[in-house]
Amino acid sequence: MTDSAFGRDTRVEPVGDGRFAGEVTQRWSGLSGNPLGGYVLAIGLRALQHTVPLSDLLVVSAYFLERVTAGPVQARTRVLRAGRRTATGEVGVYQGGREAIRATATFADLAAFDGPTHVWADPPALAAPEDSLPLYGEDVPPRATVTRQVEFRVPRLPGWRAGAPSGTPRAEFWMRLTEGGGDDVLALPFLVDCAAPAIVELGAIGSTTLQLTLQMHHRPPAGWLACRATTRFMTRGLHEEDFEIWDRNGTLIAQSRQVALPRNPG
Amino acid sequence: MTDSAFGRDTRVEPVGDGRFAGEVTQRWSGLSGNPLGGYVLAIGLRALQHTVPLSDLLVVSAYFLERVTAGPVQARTRVLRAGRRTATGEVGVYQGGREAIRATATFADLAAFDGPTHVWADPPALAAPEDSLPLYGEDVPPRATVTRQVEFRVPRLPGWRAGAPSGTPRAEFWMRLTEGGGDDVLALPFLVDCAAPAIVELGAIGSTTLQLTLQMHHRPPAGWLACRATTRFMTRGLHEEDFEIWDRNGTLIAQSRQVALPRNPG
Repeated sequence: MTDSAFGRDTRVEPVGDGRFAGEVTQRWSGLSGNPLGGYVLAIGLRALQHTVPLSDLLVVSAYFLERVTAGPVQARTRVLRAGRRTATGEVGVYQGGREAIRATATFADLAAFDGPTHVWADPPALAAPEDSLPLYGEDVPPRATVTRQVEFRVPRLPGWRAGAPSGTPRAEFWMRLTEGGGDDVLALPFLVDCAAPAIVELGAIGSTTLQLTLQMHHRPPAGWLACRATTRFMTRGLHEEDFEIWDRNGTLIAQSRQVALPRNPG
Repeated sequence: MTDSAFGRDTRVEPVGDGRFAGEVTQRWSGLSGNPLGGYVLAIGLRALQHTVPLSDLLVVSAYFLERVTAGPVQARTRVLRAGRRTATGEVGVYQGGREAIRATATFADLAAFDGPTHVWADPPALAAPEDSLPLYGEDVPPRATVTRQVEFRVPRLPGWRAGAPSGTPRAEFWMRLTEGGGDDVLALPFLVDCAAPAIVELGAIGSTTLQLTLQMHHRPPAGWLACRATTRFMTRGLHEEDFEIWDRNGTLIAQSRQVALPRNPG
């Protein structure tokens, strides 16, 4: 599962006492040129996944404390509680001796849960990815390396990409890891963080995430994922974004919510 | 602000080294007779609020690891990062030497944020609380002491209270702390956890929260709050619940999401 670009670039090596060494590459950077928070978080979660006895990511919450640059990081993990069906632990991702990300996550054996499944929501209404357009073209700056790792497709170019933000912070699109690895549960917190935030439709050029919570409902499949990003509330600039990832058959894979601050032009 | 039943029952005393002593009372227990997780969480957050330099609760995520009973608890706090506008810390709530709740929270000075405010959502459509009915009557078992601390009012009795669950896990209602203290920001994580979960409309008798994330948008007012609880996804029994708290003027105060497991009859 980790024999993919994403798997290789989130690999960690145990160095004892619940600590792991990782390397943040320059291959998963956003428009700002900095490695995306969700990518660095995945390195920390990789370490935690090695530490706890279960491997499905049931829920993770992460706080982004300091900017991370390409280079070595250390993940320090601790198990908080390990049971038969769930195991909860925490991880701090450190760079240069400073804690940059703090995350707490519950891993699970999803197959050990046998209750009913119900959905009171609709998947994104999207034409097939084969009939859709690439979201990004040749105009993406080279520093935004993540656009070479992740493909986005849309039924038609959204307002913000056509130079006319719609004013409605809502988007639906297809997304997949270009070199595979999308069936890695730890790709989920990266994927919900790597798309342009819904508030680009308000004229923002990006968003800085302060906190992210993600719940996984099913293990992700390889290939195209149908996504929906929605912001419903912005208070003094502080905004939330809800993100849903569905598979091609209309099954919800994961949902997340972020607390973030807009980056505006100029 | 803490001169209320809620304030008194979530009080903590510093015992040095970032640790605080608290007492879980029997006055905030749910139908199971156990103290509600959101109440015990508020005790931990009270300790963290004493530790960090800012007092508005911007976002908190909490993992409920072990059941807590009435009696002494210890809160162990640590500051992760303190800046001018936000300060993030973690707290563990221990009882009998075991960690029962682990929470991470960012406190803020909300007034230091000066961006725009926008809402793309509607507040609950409720008749005034003065024209509404009490949700609970004389049939509540005495062990559910929280129903004496919190008042709930509804336009009409929901299906589950009339013995005919509607099958749609969605509820709108008024809520307030009976003896005041609702203007305490730390009441918010308690309030979102103390109402009957939306899945009582599926026939469940309750829900056990594994994880809770709450984001505050405005400081809460004293008095009646308009609430909305919605479950959109249940996967093998594991379900989410979104909760919104609005004031009487249609301003969003807080939103939360929980990951939980149903408690079913019999």
